[in-house]
Amino acid sequence: MHRLIQHIQKVNRNTGIPDDLILSFFETKTFKKKEILQEEGERCSSYFFVVKGCLRLFFLDRNGAEQTLQFALEDWWMTDMDAFRTGRNSAYSIQAMEATEVLCITPANYELILSRFPFVESYFRAVYERAYAASLLRIRMISRMPKDEFYKLFQSKYPDFIQRIPQKVLASFLGFTPEYLSELRKNKVKSNNS
Amino acid sequence: MHRLIQHIQKVNRNTGIPDDLILSFFETKTFKKKEILQEEGERCSSYFFVVKGCLRLFFLDRNGAEQTLQFALEDWWMTDMDAFRTGRNSAYSIQAMEATEVLCITPANYELILSRFPFVESYFRAVYERAYAASLLRIRMISRMPKDEFYKLFQSKYPDFIQRIPQKVLASFLGFTPEYLSELRKNKVKSNNS
Repeated sequence: MHRLIQHIQKVNRNTGIPDDLILSFFETKTFKKKEILQEEGERCSSYFFVVKGCLRLFFLDRNGAEQTLQFALEDWWMTDMDAFRTGRNSAYSIQAMEATEVLCITPANYELILSRFPFVESYFRAVYERAYAASLLRIRMISRMPKDEFYKLFQSKYPDFIQRIPQKVLASFLGFTPEYLSELRKNKVKSNNS
Repeated sequence: MHRLIQHIQKVNRNTGIPDDLILSFFETKTFKKKEILQEEGERCSSYFFVVKGCLRLFFLDRNGAEQTLQFALEDWWMTDMDAFRTGRNSAYSIQAMEATEVLCITPANYELILSRFPFVESYFRAVYERAYAASLLRIRMISRMPKDEFYKLFQSKYPDFIQRIPQKVLASFLGFTPEYLSELRKNKVKSNNS
């Protein structure tokens, strides 16, 4: 069974999903490590579901440095949602961090699949609930939390990321220097450096 | 017509919603200015829709200071989504910033209304898509943007907040001193103070 169908079943707790019909709304694409799936400033015509691999979403800040806002591992969805839904150009780039296989859906097919299949509505509603809860936590972490607490929480919520994301990219994502992250990973940093 | 029904109609672009039946899943409550709707650490048994007024979601940091993460004006939803969906205690407090009228729904009724009415699934899916897109923008703003750009963007996206939220709370939310916010509002701050 395809990974997306398994995920829908898991989230919705239902079975009897018409696999082939659902998958016909999507296109499978593969990308090499470091390949760009979506360029910042280009039309955003795909919403990606990670079948295997890892994506990151980033933008170039005013100094030309890449700032990573999100990662997506298997079973995660990624796009510039605002651009995808409105037809505007993407404010972000999306890049493969590893050799990655995704399912892509266009805005038109996304509308279509939602309108035709109530269980898909239900699936995305649940996916967004989780994404929204995670983003609230993320805002809490990056706005106010001491760095070492932030790291511990991040580690407990997303242990896979710690293993799979290169140190340098992870450090930038967390707002740490690579050296500080390295110290945290060795548990050398005491817990009161707020 | 009730404000919630109007909002569902607007978001879903549909009509013929069974008003009374839908509203029977909710309870109307009113709160005075500064009254607490949800205490941090208490069971999270309500999801709030703002009919009139303004809410804020905050937590106490390790120094005992209130840190505001979100506001909700009319037609916005607010809860600790993670706690609401899992039955855990709320990690946040919710307070009325003005005299406020809300609709409340319990976790059980939320499950029920979603399972009974496909258009409610569709409504919440759309609400979360927007909330999720907004949270991505928020993360981008607070992590990397120069303060004056952040303020301009916030002002353009949420002009109502600037009018209705007390300066002191807004300054704390934006991570500014009240003095700096006051200068920004007078347009005295130049645009290169990154």
